[in-house]
Amino acid sequence: MKNKYGIVIHGGAGTILREKMTPETETEIRATLKQSLQAGYDLLDDGRAALDAVVAAINVMENSPLFNAGKGAVFTHDGDCEQDATIMDGTTGQAGAVAGVRQIANPINLARTVMEKSPHVLLIAGGAEQFAREQGFEMMPPEYFHTQLRRDQLKAALEKEKSSEGKDSGSITLSEDGKHGTVGAVALDKEGRLAAATSSGGMTNKRFGRVGDSAIVGAGTWADKTCAISTTGHGEFFMRGVVAYDLAVNMAYRGMTLEQAARTTVADKLDATGGTGGLIAIDRDGNFTLPYNTVGMYRGFLMPGGEPYVAIWEK
Amino acid sequence: MKNKYGIVIHGGAGTILREKMTPETETEIRATLKQSLQAGYDLLDDGRAALDAVVAAINVMENSPLFNAGKGAVFTHDGDCEQDATIMDGTTGQAGAVAGVRQIANPINLARTVMEKSPHVLLIAGGAEQFAREQGFEMMPPEYFHTQLRRDQLKAALEKEKSSEGKDSGSITLSEDGKHGTVGAVALDKEGRLAAATSSGGMTNKRFGRVGDSAIVGAGTWADKTCAISTTGHGEFFMRGVVAYDLAVNMAYRGMTLEQAARTTVADKLDATGGTGGLIAIDRDGNFTLPYNTVGMYRGFLMPGGEPYVAIWEK
Repeated sequence: MKNKYGIVIHGGAGTILREKMTPETETEIRATLKQSLQAGYDLLDDGRAALDAVVAAINVMENSPLFNAGKGAVFTHDGDCEQDATIMDGTTGQAGAVAGVRQIANPINLARTVMEKSPHVLLIAGGAEQFAREQGFEMMPPEYFHTQLRRDQLKAALEKEKSSEGKDSGSITLSEDGKHGTVGAVALDKEGRLAAATSSGGMTNKRFGRVGDSAIVGAGTWADKTCAISTTGHGEFFMRGVVAYDLAVNMAYRGMTLEQAARTTVADKLDATGGTGGLIAIDRDGNFTLPYNTVGMYRGFLMPGGEPYVAIWEK
Repeated sequence: MKNKYGIVIHGGAGTILREKMTPETETEIRATLKQSLQAGYDLLDDGRAALDAVVAAINVMENSPLFNAGKGAVFTHDGDCEQDATIMDGTTGQAGAVAGVRQIANPINLARTVMEKSPHVLLIAGGAEQFAREQGFEMMPPEYFHTQLRRDQLKAALEKEKSSEGKDSGSITLSEDGKHGTVGAVALDKEGRLAAATSSGGMTNKRFGRVGDSAIVGAGTWADKTCAISTTGHGEFFMRGVVAYDLAVNMAYRGMTLEQAARTTVADKLDATGGTGGLIAIDRDGNFTLPYNTVGMYRGFLMPGGEPYVAIWEK
């Protein structure tokens, strides 16, 4: 499948159980994914940059309480929301990222500002928020991010942790639902430019300032002149596997197609190590792929002449 | 050059000007590099793991006020020392990292503890220190890290910043000397295991919780069953280039030798983008290389049957 431009998104992968989801929630999730696709696609159709399209698509999911990013992010052990995000411009090779920010409604916008207005790639925690303030970002109160679903997930995780014996101070009991939440988008624009972006609330009940792959260029996000990738899953496996960049060099250094590269990376870096999750990728010819090795992945794409396609479990 | 085991270290690369260094300082730096090599090598010679050797070598440089890691780390804009470190075990593919820690004498030991005692890869700032406390690490007062040299470098950077016009709130005026300080070690042990580790105080006058490549698996540090790499330089270029992992896949995916892979990565990822710095690498056959594109790089190696070799400017 070749396309002159287009956008692919994900809203997280994991053990998304059909029986646990009400028809109302499912309908709402599918509608939000479509809205996200449309927001990004409309910009591409207007001739705007891939970079603008991925930010617009992610903002829709960050602003929805249904995804683990922005409003509706999962709770840390201490009941906060600490978010990570990365953006990369395939044309320039520039990138920006933030980790552990608590007061930013749209972390991906701050990541973009880091890329465009600072000489740095990664800013963390309070320092990143000081930068955000100087750049005119509004600081949101904790309540902005909080939802009852995430509060319940933390409560369940804490109870599970309490009841388990031999607790290691370094370990974190995870709710399966909270494990893989991340949102991401990759796009190809009419001028052939590629961009990738990822935004995440991380893991339910996370502690110790844990940062996942969503803050790391090459692990959770990559874009160059050939392809753009955003991942979602159990972040530590994606960090140790440098997953997003690995897919890119499977194309660049081993001459694989996008589809072959994606399959190889998922097999070598996730299946082989016990890592769970998925990714989305698009190349300069408009080929795209959305593999995952979990029960489901919230995902979708929109290409010229087509309707928005969204899926959760269906392969 | 093939060796059954051995260790290679760096103590930072950059504009290390001969005329700015007193003979006493130079003698002391060379002696500390030798001491670092010997500390790591002795363990390898005793049959200990590559992982133990890289930590021992780095601890010597962290404990010396002469290198930008541990005691003697550069000052942030606010007059603190905020440190990053990463370690990776090539045999298991496990990794641990910390970013923005202020109270840890040996950040590389905390990175190792993250790898071994937590399910995570990267912990940041106060959260990482909370984890350290629970794991029995001593919290050091700010004065432990401070040296007059670094205080003077911050003062010079702040004065330069003050006098420059059109200051962008996101920009950081760097002292050239503070730009590239990092320490690192890579080792091959008698059982053929590889390990890599990197520890850094980052950039003089850094702000906004800036984190560099020394905290990022794949950027500043990488180890697998084929090779181990630690980098030093202008971190943002190493992050955008995923430099350490790029060298590894130049070997794995393009069939290059270690030397070819290192040259290619330095050319493609640093020379081509204006990035400055260097790296050290060793492979499973004991081949090793220490390329850099700066005026000098503090570096050295020690292999069976040889004397400790240390160098600064000499090619």
